[in-house]
Amino acid sequence: MKVDGQHFRTIWLKPDDETVVQLIDQRFLPHRFVIEEVRTVEQMATAIREMHVRGAGLIGASAGYGMYLAAIAAAACPAAAEFDEQLAHAAAELKATRPTAVNLSWAVERQLKNIAKGKNVMDKVALALRTARSIADEDAEHCRMIGQHGLELIRQIAKRKARGPINVLTHCNAGWLAFVDHGSATAPIYAAHDSGLPVHVWVAETRPRNQGSKLTAWELGRHGVPHTIIADSAAGHLMQHGMVDLIIVGTDRTTVVGDVANKIGTYLKALAAKDNGVPFYVALPSSSFDWKVRDGLKEIPIEERSAEELKQAEGWFEGQQIGIRVAPETSPAANYGFDVTPRHLVTGLVTERGVCEANEKSIRALFPEQSS
Amino acid sequence: MKVDGQHFRTIWLKPDDETVVQLIDQRFLPHRFVIEEVRTVEQMATAIREMHVRGAGLIGASAGYGMYLAAIAAAACPAAAEFDEQLAHAAAELKATRPTAVNLSWAVERQLKNIAKGKNVMDKVALALRTARSIADEDAEHCRMIGQHGLELIRQIAKRKARGPINVLTHCNAGWLAFVDHGSATAPIYAAHDSGLPVHVWVAETRPRNQGSKLTAWELGRHGVPHTIIADSAAGHLMQHGMVDLIIVGTDRTTVVGDVANKIGTYLKALAAKDNGVPFYVALPSSSFDWKVRDGLKEIPIEERSAEELKQAEGWFEGQQIGIRVAPETSPAANYGFDVTPRHLVTGLVTERGVCEANEKSIRALFPEQSS
Repeated sequence: MKVDGQHFRTIWLKPDDETVVQLIDQRFLPHRFVIEEVRTVEQMATAIREMHVRGAGLIGASAGYGMYLAAIAAAACPAAAEFDEQLAHAAAELKATRPTAVNLSWAVERQLKNIAKGKNVMDKVALALRTARSIADEDAEHCRMIGQHGLELIRQIAKRKARGPINVLTHCNAGWLAFVDHGSATAPIYAAHDSGLPVHVWVAETRPRNQGSKLTAWELGRHGVPHTIIADSAAGHLMQHGMVDLIIVGTDRTTVVGDVANKIGTYLKALAAKDNGVPFYVALPSSSFDWKVRDGLKEIPIEERSAEELKQAEGWFEGQQIGIRVAPETSPAANYGFDVTPRHLVTGLVTERGVCEANEKSIRALFPEQSS
Repeated sequence: MKVDGQHFRTIWLKPDDETVVQLIDQRFLPHRFVIEEVRTVEQMATAIREMHVRGAGLIGASAGYGMYLAAIAAAACPAAAEFDEQLAHAAAELKATRPTAVNLSWAVERQLKNIAKGKNVMDKVALALRTARSIADEDAEHCRMIGQHGLELIRQIAKRKARGPINVLTHCNAGWLAFVDHGSATAPIYAAHDSGLPVHVWVAETRPRNQGSKLTAWELGRHGVPHTIIADSAAGHLMQHGMVDLIIVGTDRTTVVGDVANKIGTYLKALAAKDNGVPFYVALPSSSFDWKVRDGLKEIPIEERSAEELKQAEGWFEGQQIGIRVAPETSPAANYGFDVTPRHLVTGLVTERGVCEANEKSIRALFPEQSS
């Protein structure tokens, strides 16, 4: 998508040196637009763990590029055994960075499988490069397609609604900053806006890291999409008063039966949607499906992050990025990163192949190549 | 309750000069304990509007003392007509400070009614003083009684629960800082803790003003009650995983049929409680009932506060209390202060006279003197 008129992806190879990965370091948004250069898999693991990059698709693409950087470094080793050992080590390091997003292990496994096909070390590096590029390109293309399928949902609402904008509520950032381009939840919004439909977005700020107010609001603003930031707690009130026509969120992992792991607080919004008859959609590229897991509540590991994220707020003060204390020093805090929305609260899933219901039959009908 | 071993109320008359009101200026908690002196009704209106004091019961008590300060000032006028005019003006000024809390108009009306009984100006001032004291004393006593009735609920859960603490979740601050003493939602918690029951409290931080992490956590910590701060969004996840035995919240206004207006986000917690079979109780002194209003969703005005509260976070940095920016300058924000939880999501109401169901029959049975 565009930033000040220039098209950007969230991650790419440096044009004049393709052994270097460049990415938008999202820790400084919305106040500074910083591009980071990543040269090693260790640096990439840090970038994922410390959330320079975040979001389901972008974590996958970053892991893909990280494995490519690992392959370059391993190619410097004389023995093939050491090459494989180094790659296995890199794979484990990347997988350990964030436990909830399924795209991470999906991308790493895809790299390992493809690299193994290489006849020699240089061939393996070339395959790693090709795979990293494919993962990124597919992510962008899948998000574009999600936008086209989701646009139809918004068009249908626009037809029914006599006047006023179509009000879409979203949580966290499942925007282009969470993928390589377009975003998942935002792709239909951008498509609707670009096609001239009057769309307005309620942006939940998404404590404790404020990905909503810091990233989604920035994205939408740069693209010119009307939006309003709200407290996470305000979503129910808006729905009770008919101020939300549609909810679209992303997901870090959706099980084969349709249970949706996403940023903490998604479940509460889904409950309110059900209570008020508001359609609740989850947008995802197929890379965010976990084909091996059924019961999301019991089986998906939920990341617990540092209590400090909750006991302080991070933002900008007099040109400096600082953290301020918003709780007593001595009070403990618990910081669960994600929750699971059970499938019966989900109206539908918007994928690159179309919209399906949140149940195994409907999901497998869209993706018959996934063996059961 | 106690602060560093010394007993405090939230508001009181200055011991050596009873024409001055003293109160805890809560804007500086948890980092500084500041006592403010209030000498005029205008200062009191500012203290309520700008939330030096907040919370249903304390707003009522502050309005009561505010009317007393207005009576002192009006007594300086020679003509009785001017006295009444000044009091009417003060009443209107106080009522306009916060639209949602019913205790505000309840306290002001009670003062006007009692003051009108005065035979002369000095008698009116004396009545205003007596009424202000009664409102505060009754508030403290009602909260103490709520604690005793709520303690029984916690005792019942403790009997059923084989091991581990009783986990109570609360939202915002309905603690002693929101009343004159004891609190509403916290009164049963303090009573349980003081009676030796192992109680642990999940404290929702309550964006945008963080009354949970700043006030409730501070209160509980000072009293030695085990507690953990969570993001507002985390309540559903905790309930899905059996980590909450009971929810107790306060209310700014509860209708005669049992609809509950409380801090924005309460409704989402009630939905999750229903979905997971967690008892959801609302603790309130009878001054928080609105006997004239039935449909809470349609009839209770919801205060909209400044967008700035949401676009920045306030806290402490290097000994200074500052606001930092957590959103793009150009993004708008909407800041609804309260939402309404429909009565069918409420397990029961804990009042000074006992526990009742959230319906008109049960409420009126406890308070038969309220004409229908």
